[in-house]
Amino acid sequence: MTSQREIHISTQGRGTYDLTGEVQSAVRESGVEVGMCNVFVRHTSASLGLCENADPAVMRDLETFMSRIAPDGDPANTHTAEGPDDMPAHIRSIITHADLNLPVRNGRCDLGTWQGVYLWEHRHAPHQRKVTVTVTG
Amino acid sequence: MTSQREIHISTQGRGTYDLTGEVQSAVRESGVEVGMCNVFVRHTSASLGLCENADPAVMRDLETFMSRIAPDGDPANTHTAEGPDDMPAHIRSIITHADLNLPVRNGRCDLGTWQGVYLWEHRHAPHQRKVTVTVTG
Amino acid sequence: MTSQREIHISTQGRGTYDLTGEVQSAVRESGVEVGMCNVFVRHTSASLGLCENADPAVMRDLETFMSRIAPDGDPANTHTAEGPDDMPAHIRSIITHADLNLPVRNGRCDLGTWQGVYLWEHRHAPHQRKVTVTVTG
Repeated sequence: MTSQREIHISTQGRGTYDLTGEVQSAVRESGVEVGMCNVFVRHTSASLGLCENADPAVMRDLETFMSRIAPDGDPANTHTAEGPDDMPAHIRSIITHADLNLPVRNGRCDLGTWQGVYLWEHRHAPHQRKVTVTVTG
Repeated sequence: MTSQREIHISTQGRGTYDLTGEVQSAVRESGVEVGMCNVFVRHTSASLGLCENADPAVMRDLETFMSRIAPDGDPANTHTAEGPDDMPAHIRSIITHADLNLPVRNGRCDLGTWQGVYLWEHRHAPHQRKVTVTVTG
Repeated sequence: MTSQREIHISTQGRGTYDLTGEVQSAVRESGVEVGMCNVFVRHTSASLGLCENADPAVMRDLETFMSRIAPDGDPANTHTAEGPDDMPAHIRSIITHADLNLPVRNGRCDLGTWQGVYLWEHRHAPHQRKVTVTVTG
């Protein structure tokens, strides 16, 4: 049994957006009790992460980390057609995740207590992002 | 057919722990001959990696690399409630993997010669870690 | 239904190799209309990435980024048996991806407009690389 749906997210620019509720809804509506849930982002300048979901300081510190290793406006970048955050967005995407694969147990993604599913928008401008959720079991 | 089991690992603090044998056992006991094996860690301060399994120097060098890009006690971090290795553990987790998805062939994970499945404990204190293995096919 | 095939890639040394066409062929030939496609590299010194597929400057800038955080000949590395690019290849592999998991919809991987599937060879010498494609649905 495979169930698939698309989630649309209107981002307000760089930052993290909690998708945990929508992903759990997709699993619940699929009727799958035991199986797998794939979350996939169809972009190369936004990505996914399983992050600590309790303290907003974690997200701020992740941004600080990324800004240090892949700073906006880095003169080393040559792919700059869309601005100083164009190439850093690709780098941030490639060292995080386009796909997350979560075990389904008892009809829900069997996340740990502190794990949330986040979309990570790496561009400063607002974007329309599409995420595909596929539940199998 | 979906088969699921949980592996419990008592870590002795930061370092890598070879799970290859336990993952292969889970596949063997599932009876799946061709399919997929998902390994999932239910934490945000420990992660998974497919590493070179022959030379212990690889693990030491990976630690050196991580210590350089995400050092303990980094004054840039504000999420420090659990100590100087709290935020670095989240960073290390997010740039490595919470899930690994391995093809199953002839009744086992079809790994390359040098690939081992490792849990990576990023905290210095010993922890109880849970990993879910889901085999489908 | 599970369908599995191996792709062999003769790399010419460090760089990216577009596998999108071969992966889409594997999905088409599997006959799966809705499901999942797993792409898995059986090595620890080559990896996979979903990259921007239009501007070659992206790949050059990714190389610049990797060279900065994991430089060849880094004196911090002790795992150097195969040369100055040995350990950097492992580091690059572990912070990118050994597996990609792509939703299948209407008989093809449902990639975004700018997403291509790339093998990333991290060694300077040419290598024979094996990638397993597993399609389920």
